[in-house]
Amino acid sequence: MRQVSTVAELREATATFRRQGDTLAFVPTMGCLHEGHLALVKRAKAEADRVVVSIFVNPSQFGPGEDLTAYPRMEDADCAKLEGAGVDLVFLPTEEALYPPGDQTVVMLSELPQHLCGLARPIHFQGVATVCSKLFNAVGPDVVVFGEKDYQQLQVIRRMVKDLLLPIRVVGVPTVRETDGLALSSRNQYLSPDERAQALSLNQALQAAATLVANGEQDVDRILGALKSRITSSGGQVDYIAVVDSETLESLENLGHEARALVAVQFGGARLIDNIALRPPS
Amino acid sequence: MRQVSTVAELREATATFRRQGDTLAFVPTMGCLHEGHLALVKRAKAEADRVVVSIFVNPSQFGPGEDLTAYPRMEDADCAKLEGAGVDLVFLPTEEALYPPGDQTVVMLSELPQHLCGLARPIHFQGVATVCSKLFNAVGPDVVVFGEKDYQQLQVIRRMVKDLLLPIRVVGVPTVRETDGLALSSRNQYLSPDERAQALSLNQALQAAATLVANGEQDVDRILGALKSRITSSGGQVDYIAVVDSETLESLENLGHEARALVAVQFGGARLIDNIALRPPS
Repeated sequence: MRQVSTVAELREATATFRRQGDTLAFVPTMGCLHEGHLALVKRAKAEADRVVVSIFVNPSQFGPGEDLTAYPRMEDADCAKLEGAGVDLVFLPTEEALYPPGDQTVVMLSELPQHLCGLARPIHFQGVATVCSKLFNAVGPDVVVFGEKDYQQLQVIRRMVKDLLLPIRVVGVPTVRETDGLALSSRNQYLSPDERAQALSLNQALQAAATLVANGEQDVDRILGALKSRITSSGGQVDYIAVVDSETLESLENLGHEARALVAVQFGGARLIDNIALRPPS
Repeated sequence: MRQVSTVAELREATATFRRQGDTLAFVPTMGCLHEGHLALVKRAKAEADRVVVSIFVNPSQFGPGEDLTAYPRMEDADCAKLEGAGVDLVFLPTEEALYPPGDQTVVMLSELPQHLCGLARPIHFQGVATVCSKLFNAVGPDVVVFGEKDYQQLQVIRRMVKDLLLPIRVVGVPTVRETDGLALSSRNQYLSPDERAQALSLNQALQAAATLVANGEQDVDRILGALKSRITSSGGQVDYIAVVDSETLESLENLGHEARALVAVQFGGARLIDNIALRPPS
């Protein structure tokens, strides 16, 4: 596994793959890798001949007062995991490699960030779209792989790729969970044992909502009510609990063909998010 | 010369060039082609094996009240000129091909548009950056060729390509002029004979300023004064007359290594722009 830190080295390495006729899959990460990331790598290996992973804690997607400086960094352990997972190339850029002196270009979406996490984190998705544009242009992949855990991010990337006519296929991978259902997240390590127990309410409530819908419930208010009663009794501080169109993320009054339930709840120092597909009986 | 109107056809055609090992140069235009555009094509042919030209009057770079609907369209004559100039492929997209349903992604620069034409046309450069991102991603060129006539646009494209890490070389081509010095522009056809005579003051004033600087003048106020007296006496309505840093377009008090003088003046129904390099004696 090769490690590079400049765009020039990255391009030289990917050009070598291309000369061999290989296709490329790309997985952008912020490091602190867990089994969720490794599931993305596994899927990437199934989608293309070569897998490129980036590790970069992107400052432009953190707002003031968010956990940018506290965000865990462990590059050596991360690279060992990626090598074990069969990754071909790791890109570890400096901030200056992605934001050259005088940098002033941003990629913005006008509607998708006006929902859910975008309300509490107003510059977050602009930062995500901008850094992903840069990374996609630097790597030049055929396929990019993102987790459904960050569902709004996945929809932002799908929309951006479509709108900017990027010749890239976007693949979403289901969330990886602990055996008790907690979605894997680098931020879980901020949880105390009590908070971790409380946080199980997220997946339990989402599963219950999906069962309600599978059994024929179509009234969004009743689905939201069931989600809220289960989550608010857990002790977390709710940011949002929402049932939305699975593509536009706009609020729904009645369930259409496929919707998504999404929650964001603060437990102690950790703001956790989770989501589930709501599929009416066919 | 092949003509295509969908992104899928475009990609299939460029993929054929790539399989032959050919490099690609791309010239985006809004049609109504004149010798200035053909100079870009000629340079493009010198820069790469194959030349792709797009013709698209981009709505997102016109503000309310600007000349979007009046903007001249003559696709058949344009294509004949491009064929004569040896272009390999012309891309004539529909609006929906570049702005798919639900489109909401924009590319913005925070500083360069805060100067010169960007002040009178606040959404113009966002529209230019966005459509050029789309076109560059659709075409996948090695080189893009732009005219120095739209000098601020050229700097916006250079900056965007650098910031977004696009693997593209940006080439600027000197302005093509009538024998009497008037810069070629699709908007010159809006001029009456009297207005056309008045408009010669732009190039005359810019040439005089460049001569002043070449002869040792370093005081920006005196250079601006010379430009203003020459242009305001011509009868046009001045939008701006500026001497700026040639890369950042920020105002200068004293000339550094290389500056640029730029003017925008309305003559009747035509808003004309022109510019020149100011090179101090070495």
